[in-house]
Amino acid sequence: MSSVAAPVADRLAVIGLGLIGSSLLRAARAQGAARVCVGYDHDADIRDTARVLDIADHIEDALSAAVSEADLIIIATPVGVIGDVATAIAPHLRPGAIVSDVGSVKAAVAEAFAATLPKHVHGVPGHPVAGTEQSGPEAGFAALFAARWCILTPGPETDAEAVARLSAFWRRLGATVELMSPDHHDRVLAVTSHLPHLIAYTIVGVASDLEQVTEAEVVKFSAGGFRDFTRIAASDPTMWRDVFLNNREAVLELLGRFTEDLIALQRAIRWGEGETLHEHFTRTRAIRREVIETGQDTAAPDFGRRPAPDDQA
Amino acid sequence: MSSVAAPVADRLAVIGLGLIGSSLLRAARAQGAARVCVGYDHDADIRDTARVLDIADHIEDALSAAVSEADLIIIATPVGVIGDVATAIAPHLRPGAIVSDVGSVKAAVAEAFAATLPKHVHGVPGHPVAGTEQSGPEAGFAALFAARWCILTPGPETDAEAVARLSAFWRRLGATVELMSPDHHDRVLAVTSHLPHLIAYTIVGVASDLEQVTEAEVVKFSAGGFRDFTRIAASDPTMWRDVFLNNREAVLELLGRFTEDLIALQRAIRWGEGETLHEHFTRTRAIRREVIETGQDTAAPDFGRRPAPDDQA
Repeated sequence: MSSVAAPVADRLAVIGLGLIGSSLLRAARAQGAARVCVGYDHDADIRDTARVLDIADHIEDALSAAVSEADLIIIATPVGVIGDVATAIAPHLRPGAIVSDVGSVKAAVAEAFAATLPKHVHGVPGHPVAGTEQSGPEAGFAALFAARWCILTPGPETDAEAVARLSAFWRRLGATVELMSPDHHDRVLAVTSHLPHLIAYTIVGVASDLEQVTEAEVVKFSAGGFRDFTRIAASDPTMWRDVFLNNREAVLELLGRFTEDLIALQRAIRWGEGETLHEHFTRTRAIRREVIETGQDTAAPDFGRRPAPDDQA
Repeated sequence: MSSVAAPVADRLAVIGLGLIGSSLLRAARAQGAARVCVGYDHDADIRDTARVLDIADHIEDALSAAVSEADLIIIATPVGVIGDVATAIAPHLRPGAIVSDVGSVKAAVAEAFAATLPKHVHGVPGHPVAGTEQSGPEAGFAALFAARWCILTPGPETDAEAVARLSAFWRRLGATVELMSPDHHDRVLAVTSHLPHLIAYTIVGVASDLEQVTEAEVVKFSAGGFRDFTRIAASDPTMWRDVFLNNREAVLELLGRFTEDLIALQRAIRWGEGETLHEHFTRTRAIRREVIETGQDTAAPDFGRRPAPDDQA
């Protein structure tokens, strides 16, 4: 039904053509969410790839040309350069344009938008909670945002009409929109995304650095649980560096909690306190059920991993 | 081809009919690995379920009856009771029988076998590195061991013929057999399985216990990484309690390494050391590639999770 509806935006400009940016353009086109779809990346090779992939009506060679006619601009770069991009595009934005982003941290983006964007545009930070461990324009796909959440974090003074239009855009791409404050977003995502990534990066790092167990052995027997962590720890290093540098307080506070609880379990192991371990391991089962019941993950065992071709032998 | 070959065992007895035990019986039948397949569980309800599921030729109501005629007995209970089961079956074993198990810890099982099994049988501890987060006889399936590793940890004095026969049995089920010492097994699995599970249990526990973020929010936005951990943290609590109580030294040593590395990353976040973070996050990508190249995981993004029915809307 949605693909025959009128476009939500007249001219969409996406800055940064990695996994998320290229998926945004593909999804906007597939759903007719914008009359014209324009892309830009600071890397000429990625612009060329995007042209070959034919994911937009125009891939512009200049940032200013990409944004000057757009009524919706979405910055899809790592969080660390969103402020720089906002500064660079500011003089070229047309009055009434909406500027948003897809960064995994929102307080820092809200501050950057407030400091750099002109009064005649609407800055509305956003974060689609979607992605895969892969990177680059080739990794994108139109259905990435379908049945996923997109969090918007407008300020109290943000134009309600702009928020409504941006919400309609994300809904057109299949997402469900939720509004919250940037600070609350950063606390929620610290739990559901940032801490899990830091832990996965740590455990994979430990495993590659042992004396008595070789890396080949770790890889060979990784189906016992470890392989799950390698997926998350394969995520884009620049994106994740920027996340941790820009959500420092929430991540550090949570790390304190994590370390406390881990040390409590460690103590229970050392002293052979089976009851404590069993009670803890039982409690965590309920959350998996909720994750599945709310449609946030598949109920199939092992994430429904497809068996290898010879698995049915 | 393998399904027309002669049975490897004459009479297989599987003790414990959970995910692994029931998969073992299904796989043995599907591949014709034993002439007669017998099952036993101490829980009468599970025996009834196993009969309804029709996973064996006989489900016995008495442990002694299950093992007395068997030439291959595989104990598929939680590690904590393997010693008790071995003690209970010892008087009923026929000379030359092979007794093995599927526990995730091997030094403790090797000790229990040495202490309890009579001289006229062959105790060969084993561990198929396979499983899902689900439990119970209904969760089992015949292809669980296909293209997976099965580690056997015979002692230097174990009968080579018995090891060869048990190896042939696992190969018939589709697994690749690897021999190592019990201690080395326990160190390898501490990295590839035990530490990942402990960390997943910890992080899911932390998330369910916060003041400023509700559990409903955690579940709602879990696609940012957290949901991966909920799968592992949904594993059987009794099994995992026993693993940690029986592989204490290796797990505690590894936890020391993990905490050190985590604190180093924590420090880098606190002091804004982007280079340190980026370098660490880059290093871990290579292992994911190896895991995929060696066939231990799917290369599909997000583990090839099947999209929800409305995902293509």
